[in-house]
Amino acid sequence: MIPSEPTSPHQGPVLAPDEAILAIDVGGTDTKSALLDSADQLQGVQRRPTVLRPGEAGDSVVENVVAILGEYRAAWPHKRVRAIGLIAPGLVDERKGVGIFSANLGWRDYPFTERLEAATGLPVTFGHDVGAAGDAEVRIGAARGLADVVVMIIGTGVAGAVFCGGQRILGGGYAGEIGHAEVPGGEPCRCGAHGCLETVGAAGAIARRYAERSGRAVNGAREVLQLQAAGDAQAQAVVDDAVNALAFSICQLAATLGTEAVVIGGGLAQAGEQLFAPLRAAVDERLSFHRRPRLLAASMGQDAGLIGAGLQAQDLLGARP
Amino acid sequence: MIPSEPTSPHQGPVLAPDEAILAIDVGGTDTKSALLDSADQLQGVQRRPTVLRPGEAGDSVVENVVAILGEYRAAWPHKRVRAIGLIAPGLVDERKGVGIFSANLGWRDYPFTERLEAATGLPVTFGHDVGAAGDAEVRIGAARGLADVVVMIIGTGVAGAVFCGGQRILGGGYAGEIGHAEVPGGEPCRCGAHGCLETVGAAGAIARRYAERSGRAVNGAREVLQLQAAGDAQAQAVVDDAVNALAFSICQLAATLGTEAVVIGGGLAQAGEQLFAPLRAAVDERLSFHRRPRLLAASMGQDAGLIGAGLQAQDLLGARP
Repeated sequence: MIPSEPTSPHQGPVLAPDEAILAIDVGGTDTKSALLDSADQLQGVQRRPTVLRPGEAGDSVVENVVAILGEYRAAWPHKRVRAIGLIAPGLVDERKGVGIFSANLGWRDYPFTERLEAATGLPVTFGHDVGAAGDAEVRIGAARGLADVVVMIIGTGVAGAVFCGGQRILGGGYAGEIGHAEVPGGEPCRCGAHGCLETVGAAGAIARRYAERSGRAVNGAREVLQLQAAGDAQAQAVVDDAVNALAFSICQLAATLGTEAVVIGGGLAQAGEQLFAPLRAAVDERLSFHRRPRLLAASMGQDAGLIGAGLQAQDLLGARP
Repeated sequence: MIPSEPTSPHQGPVLAPDEAILAIDVGGTDTKSALLDSADQLQGVQRRPTVLRPGEAGDSVVENVVAILGEYRAAWPHKRVRAIGLIAPGLVDERKGVGIFSANLGWRDYPFTERLEAATGLPVTFGHDVGAAGDAEVRIGAARGLADVVVMIIGTGVAGAVFCGGQRILGGGYAGEIGHAEVPGGEPCRCGAHGCLETVGAAGAIARRYAERSGRAVNGAREVLQLQAAGDAQAQAVVDDAVNALAFSICQLAATLGTEAVVIGGGLAQAGEQLFAPLRAAVDERLSFHRRPRLLAASMGQDAGLIGAGLQAQDLLGARP
């Protein structure tokens, strides 16, 4: 439940020094959790395997969150947990607090906010994991102070969060699927469509396409980038394809939305200027009168989603004084 | 100056029955004007050539508007003009009421709202012409009641207005340039970029590309569509290219923004199902798990921009009670 006002870094202290938000990120493999304190810092970050009963995935998540809440209360007796910020992958209706669909985790139309509020008696937000990471980057990270921003997380796939006028675009839970927008030269995608950006532009695609082309197994995109730096022509071609695909998608955003900055995170962003320099050049070459987005490296790290989950719950507290 | 609240069809009567908004649409060739009354109806629609002094384009527009206001006051003595809604093409900063740039009309960073309010003593809004036409379609036209909508006007070029969560996306004046986003198979564009949608998908492109391919001059896209219907293979190929380019762009919007409806207006929309049926099929084929946008024909007609201009000024009156 995100307030519909344009969001800015939250105003004034919502939490007292002895209060915290419990932030929980339910992933396909692991569930991460932490307390977010009044200074927007995470404390007690933990990771445990996500274990859900088949056919009862939503109820299992609620039970796990109740157990995790108990653990934090026991371990941090002097911190009062004021609210819970839960995030998850898949199609999420943040306004209603409903998990529309998650193929990996196995729920459909599950009312997380309602069930968790009933189970804990605390205010709860339920948000999208990548959207929450985007919130953190826009509100207190790389794009702080900017209004028209796209956050792209480039790893196994490409996930996105789109901000216009300071507001994240929700699209009924369907917005931000930049990795599943078509690019020229794209390949058949596991999603069922053809030519999706992530079939060429993701770190996973760089590793897979290099292995296919060279007949040589590699240990991820990082190794392909090392081969490219050493002059390997096949690695160069595969990285060029990724850069062109990413530039194509970024220019679509610039033309359609007037995006002023693109924040790039995830594994591929660790390539630094080896990625950013050619990507800037490719974007620059494609645009004419359009607004030219700055390309920025994500600054919030791997726990951006947890921080964003905490910020969402803080907003809710701020809106329900 | 658009209020930042999510807009819905405006609430309650802002205008009394004896009051009106003066709506003015300054185009590259003609200036249209009308009174918008309390029932959102246009009265006294007029069209005159746009005449601007070279080098003083902005000031000329202000003088012309003052003259037009005088004419309407004389012709409609029993209607009190409460506000002026002015719209124009080019890059427009609606929040500041500034014309950032218009290549055709010749201004740069001209403060229309400020100057017109000083010259007339009335509240003034200054908006983008296509954005205003989009406002009309979303608020009282084809997309009434929908929140995530793109309005595409397909004529000589392709212009757009993008709505997310009921709000038009502004992007500092740069949003909505769907016609200048790249598509596969696109050609060099007069904007300086390559492959823009409007080089293949616009009515103008259909006529030009058929003439180039067949060596036969045609009287606009309408004639190419007639030739297609009669079995002309070259016409079929050119229309197929346009449909595929438009479908590509619509699917970008669906993936990125979760667009639920695309309203198509402009000359090409008059082709009706000859355009809409293959376009629906092409969009449907490209998408997988994405939200599938409905394709709707624009319903507000050629004066949609004037109506939208009037609605913008009504909003301003509603926000300054």
